Amino acid sequence: MKHNPKEFRTIWLHPDDPAVVQIIDQRLLPHKYQVHDLRSWQDGEVAICDMYVRGAPLIGATAAWSLYLAAATSGGSLDAVQEAAQSLAASRPTAVNLHWAIDRVVARAATAGDDLVATLRQEAEAICIEDVAISRGIGEYGVALIEAIAAARPGPVNILTHCNAGALATINWGTATAPVYVAQERGIDVHVWVDETRPRNQGSQLTCWELARANVPHTLIVDNAGGHLMQHGMVDLVMTGTDRTTRAGDVANKIGTYLKALAARDNDIPFYVALPSTTIDWSISDGIRDIPIEERDPREVSEIYGVVDDRTCTVRTTAPGTAISNYAFDVTPARLVTGLITERGICAASEEGLLTLFPERTA
Amino acid sequence: MKHNPKEFRTIWLHPDDPAVVQIIDQRLLPHKYQVHDLRSWQDGEVAICDMYVRGAPLIGATAAWSLYLAAATSGGSLDAVQEAAQSLAASRPTAVNLHWAIDRVVARAATAGDDLVATLRQEAEAICIEDVAISRGIGEYGVALIEAIAAARPGPVNILTHCNAGALATINWGTATAPVYVAQERGIDVHVWVDETRPRNQGSQLTCWELARANVPHTLIVDNAGGHLMQHGMVDLVMTGTDRTTRAGDVANKIGTYLKALAARDNDIPFYVALPSTTIDWSISDGIRDIPIEERDPREVSEIYGVVDDRTCTVRTTAPGTAISNYAFDVTPARLVTGLITERGICAASEEGLLTLFPERTA
Repeated sequence: MKHNPKEFRTIWLHPDDPAVVQIIDQRLLPHKYQVHDLRSWQDGEVAICDMYVRGAPLIGATAAWSLYLAAATSGGSLDAVQEAAQSLAASRPTAVNLHWAIDRVVARAATAGDDLVATLRQEAEAICIEDVAISRGIGEYGVALIEAIAAARPGPVNILTHCNAGALATINWGTATAPVYVAQERGIDVHVWVDETRPRNQGSQLTCWELARANVPHTLIVDNAGGHLMQHGMVDLVMTGTDRTTRAGDVANKIGTYLKALAARDNDIPFYVALPSTTIDWSISDGIRDIPIEERDPREVSEIYGVVDDRTCTVRTTAPGTAISNYAFDVTPARLVTGLITERGICAASEEGLLTLFPERTA
Repeated sequence: MKHNPKEFRTIWLHPDDPAVVQIIDQRLLPHKYQVHDLRSWQDGEVAICDMYVRGAPLIGATAAWSLYLAAATSGGSLDAVQEAAQSLAASRPTAVNLHWAIDRVVARAATAGDDLVATLRQEAEAICIEDVAISRGIGEYGVALIEAIAAARPGPVNILTHCNAGALATINWGTATAPVYVAQERGIDVHVWVDETRPRNQGSQLTCWELARANVPHTLIVDNAGGHLMQHGMVDLVMTGTDRTTRAGDVANKIGTYLKALAARDNDIPFYVALPSTTIDWSISDGIRDIPIEERDPREVSEIYGVVDDRTCTVRTTAPGTAISNYAFDVTPARLVTGLITERGICAASEEGLLTLFPERTA
């Protein structure tokens, strides 16, 4: 499959069978591209919990489509939708888009009447279409940062990113990658340092995969390497996504983001976070105190998926019985974030900054 | 094999055959404990280059034993020793103990006369015996830091370490682990957070292995997780080793050490570096400018050693053709280092600090 951000989709209704929502089983990338069918809301829940899909925007969209499936498989039962919503809301704790999407679909369901199935299909489609526009908007605003660096000196603009805040984390374009794809459209010479992103290797397995297919030059590094690159002038700009952003501008993102923000600050390198406004949790200010950090299965650390002799397999890297702790996210305080790139523009990572773009949120 | 720091050795002369030096093939741990024979200085060079052995002190000791083998296999030829020394000196660029050990043995060789083989055997043995005493000294001084934390409040002292600066990196006891083993001897309740340490996983494969065998409580985490733990009060003390220390107190250590030092600083957690004085390069001050950082084979990043169906194997985790950059070390500037733990005591990470312990180095 050729990756083209304009045509790419990460979730879609089966073209011939409205009882089936289709996703890419991202657990198998980059070694296998395999489409996976969701036929019930429970299938959607498994896809979210077990990370067939991941990335805050795509988690939200998958929840929306799961609620459509709850309606469709129950013959249009509002009770079924509400029951599914309750269960789905608990599927992953850190990303806030999940709750945003569920709340939106449930509210829409409440007024749908007899058209529940068709209404929820429209709503899920609308969420996806809006997400594409939002990502494109992030790209259009964010590219200005890349253009400014490119204009200041010759050679490629070196961007470091952590995890996958790419097309695969959204519907397409991505959040942190959107400015990169727009820069490429505009003929700007870019190069991306891709953090491997332990434990699930979303960098080496997903970001490298999508950048390769989009022909964006990139180099994989281990998560440990970013500080060294920054010390030696090899990084111009850091851009990451976020799973939840507080109204004060703290960002919860994949574990390890905080360490890169510290290194960027120590080396005077701009550290930007790209986000659809759906990741903002306007109800909290202190991210370190108030954002729940998911702990996941230790086997994500001890077992690694790969290829041996042209067969995919999972190997255990640790001795049996090794105690393992697996926090999935960390919080980068706003003081370390140079700015937030949203679909309405770029702002300071602060309540004042966010309210300039989202004045309707003024308390 | 039961690990006992007092009896443990990482390199030794074969008890019945003085033509053979034996090491643990550390590439195979924790899945296989396998002793490997060195029969020539070239075997020693391969063991250093391909990381059968690693860790600055053990690299130095292996070079010393390799020079003994050069003498033994050449019938006591000084030319052969000098030729071997030249080649061994280029085997790994960052660690300075390698050069220290080679210079020491070559100087001894020059005055050995007809007793070259016996003299170099004595010298290699002396380096190992001294290393044990040095590590023990580091442990005796460093344990005071742990004791002070333990005395201040109940519960285990949580120590985070990066890579393996353990028994396996030295002859025994280790550098960063020496205070932990001494604390355990004294009945202090300690718990070690072990960074996985990508790309070669020295944390999950070596540090966990040796701590488990010494019955030291420990938990494996990914390299990305340390910042989150520090933000949440789960780390009392960070201790790492170093491969080269400048006279100003900058430390080159396994890639990623710098990121942990930044996180420790940001959270007011003491960050100590444990080192035998043989890792100090008195000829340089600016580590970021002057310490050569080794770049290693990209396959260390793309391929991972593990176990599947009770068989060990190596899997490729990335798509074929992925560009990879693999820097093995980074430099933590002295300003981020709370103190240096040496065999002569603890000092500030500065020229003034080091000279209080090593006044003979005053320029």
